[in-house]
Amino acid sequence: MKLLEQLIDIPSPSGSEYLMRDFITQYVRKHSDSWKVQPKILSGDFLQDNLILVFGEPRTAIFAHMDTIGFTVRYHDQLVPIGGPDVENGYELVGRDSKGLIQCTLRVDDEGQLFYDFPRAIETGTTLTWKPALKVGEGFLEGPYMDNRLGIYNALKVAEHLTDGVIVFSSFEEHGGGSVPILIKYLAENYSIKQCLISDITWVTEGVQHESGVAISMRDRNIPRRKFLDRVLELAAESGIAHQLEVEGGGSSDGREIHHSPYPIDWLFIGAPEDNVHSPHERVAIKDLTAMIAMYIYLMEKL
Amino acid sequence: MKLLEQLIDIPSPSGSEYLMRDFITQYVRKHSDSWKVQPKILSGDFLQDNLILVFGEPRTAIFAHMDTIGFTVRYHDQLVPIGGPDVENGYELVGRDSKGLIQCTLRVDDEGQLFYDFPRAIETGTTLTWKPALKVGEGFLEGPYMDNRLGIYNALKVAEHLTDGVIVFSSFEEHGGGSVPILIKYLAENYSIKQCLISDITWVTEGVQHESGVAISMRDRNIPRRKFLDRVLELAAESGIAHQLEVEGGGSSDGREIHHSPYPIDWLFIGAPEDNVHSPHERVAIKDLTAMIAMYIYLMEKL
Amino acid sequence: MKLLEQLIDIPSPSGSEYLMRDFITQYVRKHSDSWKVQPKILSGDFLQDNLILVFGEPRTAIFAHMDTIGFTVRYHDQLVPIGGPDVENGYELVGRDSKGLIQCTLRVDDEGQLFYDFPRAIETGTTLTWKPALKVGEGFLEGPYMDNRLGIYNALKVAEHLTDGVIVFSSFEEHGGGSVPILIKYLAENYSIKQCLISDITWVTEGVQHESGVAISMRDRNIPRRKFLDRVLELAAESGIAHQLEVEGGGSSDGREIHHSPYPIDWLFIGAPEDNVHSPHERVAIKDLTAMIAMYIYLMEKL
Repeated sequence: MKLLEQLIDIPSPSGSEYLMRDFITQYVRKHSDSWKVQPKILSGDFLQDNLILVFGEPRTAIFAHMDTIGFTVRYHDQLVPIGGPDVENGYELVGRDSKGLIQCTLRVDDEGQLFYDFPRAIETGTTLTWKPALKVGEGFLEGPYMDNRLGIYNALKVAEHLTDGVIVFSSFEEHGGGSVPILIKYLAENYSIKQCLISDITWVTEGVQHESGVAISMRDRNIPRRKFLDRVLELAAESGIAHQLEVEGGGSSDGREIHHSPYPIDWLFIGAPEDNVHSPHERVAIKDLTAMIAMYIYLMEKL
Repeated sequence: MKLLEQLIDIPSPSGSEYLMRDFITQYVRKHSDSWKVQPKILSGDFLQDNLILVFGEPRTAIFAHMDTIGFTVRYHDQLVPIGGPDVENGYELVGRDSKGLIQCTLRVDDEGQLFYDFPRAIETGTTLTWKPALKVGEGFLEGPYMDNRLGIYNALKVAEHLTDGVIVFSSFEEHGGGSVPILIKYLAENYSIKQCLISDITWVTEGVQHESGVAISMRDRNIPRRKFLDRVLELAAESGIAHQLEVEGGGSSDGREIHHSPYPIDWLFIGAPEDNVHSPHERVAIKDLTAMIAMYIYLMEKL
Repeated sequence: MKLLEQLIDIPSPSGSEYLMRDFITQYVRKHSDSWKVQPKILSGDFLQDNLILVFGEPRTAIFAHMDTIGFTVRYHDQLVPIGGPDVENGYELVGRDSKGLIQCTLRVDDEGQLFYDFPRAIETGTTLTWKPALKVGEGFLEGPYMDNRLGIYNALKVAEHLTDGVIVFSSFEEHGGGSVPILIKYLAENYSIKQCLISDITWVTEGVQHESGVAISMRDRNIPRRKFLDRVLELAAESGIAHQLEVEGGGSSDGREIHHSPYPIDWLFIGAPEDNVHSPHERVAIKDLTAMIAMYIYLMEKL
């Protein structure tokens, strides 16, 4: 779990993903010698703060977003949300401005307005994120940003076994989107990518339960193409790996922007479920994470 | 009306348009010998489930969406809407899962939650659509999916007379969009398309009445470019074909995605109005459909 | 202020920007002889109603939208808004239909429905805009459409000093967007544009005050990339020009569509603040406009 702890320690609210991009780049440089195939590492201004790993002759891309929800300091002690954080009095936040490190708490008034409590004023525009803290125990992982540190973790575990495929580490998924159009254009014009799997974390609901396997989303706010969905479901059944089906009317992911791209590329969201969504206490069953990794390894080979 | 009945019989909720694509492809193969010009039929993975017919030297494209509103089975007896269906207790739905054909009824509880009533459980992810039933009489057509089986019907009637133009059968119009970017990119890069007409069905309102001709939409949620609008209105006046002007603040169509595309292509929505919108009893005046077909034939020649 | 008065006199609600495009084109033809560099003027069907000026070897583009909020006449005496106008009984509106010039007043009923009061019926689809009227005095400009006539004014003043850069006059910013995708594609494919500044007017709030300098928006509904923001903030500090920082959770600009484009191009909103937003009485401090022009001249050179 050391890798997961490292991922949780790095702040990367939407718009400030570069630290996470740099960490993953270093991690790949350090560890990929022992991988089945050494990927080509693509990064730079042409990809903004995003990162692409290319293995062999790719047909399928994994998308794992690097950004997290958080808060921007407005004026006085006001906060504006980044993405859709769960908000509760007393949640601990961390950050840094030109005066130094910040560790403060969240305050929510009766009208839902957000504030920080801290002995000094924090500079306007400073970003704050949940205080890192990972608990491992009794079959569960609990802490901030399981969404989407586990999606990144999954991608880096799958990378060890990957012969042909692309892994994309994207930005702005939690807030406003906008990195996928750049990424999908680059992939479509340079590689024969025809399908994408969204490596992200979903919700525990009445139909999706902890320890019941990785969730395959049949739809959320967007509807993937049925032909591709049916093909993946068939492979998933074949695989024998624990999985469950999800159907939602809302919710969204990087899949939305792949769906709206001008390229004929299919997408599907496949991820372990969590409860306490977007709080500092997101909780995921280790069994479901294990199934997620196994399913991705299987699908990346078979698709 | 045999063609219209066939179109209504084929289920094609957003995401599952391939059956309709296959039917139209067969229809064109069978009937286009007697058309003025034989179109080039474009389909395949590069267009996902969409279909394009190219006639002669095209300047203008007709867009007719193939998908319909409907429902996805969630867990237990729950339903999630596809697009924005009108919902009322007792509406009849049909579908199919691995256990066989389904004919069930819609149930709406006090909070607007949706359910099906059926003796057995329907598999999660199954799609349901209105039970087909077309009534023809006293100058009106009534049944499910006038929107947009009539838009397809219009396109196939116009096809008989078309010398230069493109007809596009698109997907995902009712739910989330996403097929137009692929289609408009392909058209812009391969043909000199400068303008699009949206062959779709609009609403009867205080300003748009049955039997008053085809409606030309001056705006909906989106505003077409005035210069193009004025040119079409001038041609429409010249044509002598019955038409009426529509101005709405809301509502949308494939025009929205053409508007947002990176290509300088104009668009305009032109279609017959219906009442009982998105219910199983959509009703359109035959006179307005006839005017719609005549107007499209005229505009495709003159624009 | 003659130029500003001329800009305010020309109606250009979203969808009908061509008159403003033509005015600016004439203005540039007439005045650019005395500018530091004579720009290349790009306009025509390939840009729809938009206009691009190219100076030297551009790295940065200024975006100034030409369209304004307004109203479309629906049926009877009903109005539908274009963009998000402030609405109040008695506001004066002007327009023109085939029967001649129109000067009427706005009426708002208890449910927020909009109507016009005028002795005759106005033709369906006619667009109405605030009656032009510019007051200059005591350090302030007041009138309709400071947003975004001042953004255009700023761009044309910066143009006098510009050696390398692009100035874009865009459409549909107030209503639905859709011109930026065409413009950014053209710029990305023909020039090495890596960054854009949005020349537009923002809001006076508790944190952004009149006469405190031009506002640099650290975020609105969208979040610009932190790396680019930090670079601009550093230059702004260096410049010694009066400026203030803005942080908002809502609001949007042409920056949104640049953000969502498939090109790796950064954006930032920099503009003077106004109060009485989207009313006929928008008010901007002359000091802030002066700082805006100075800041743009500085940044276009240094970025």
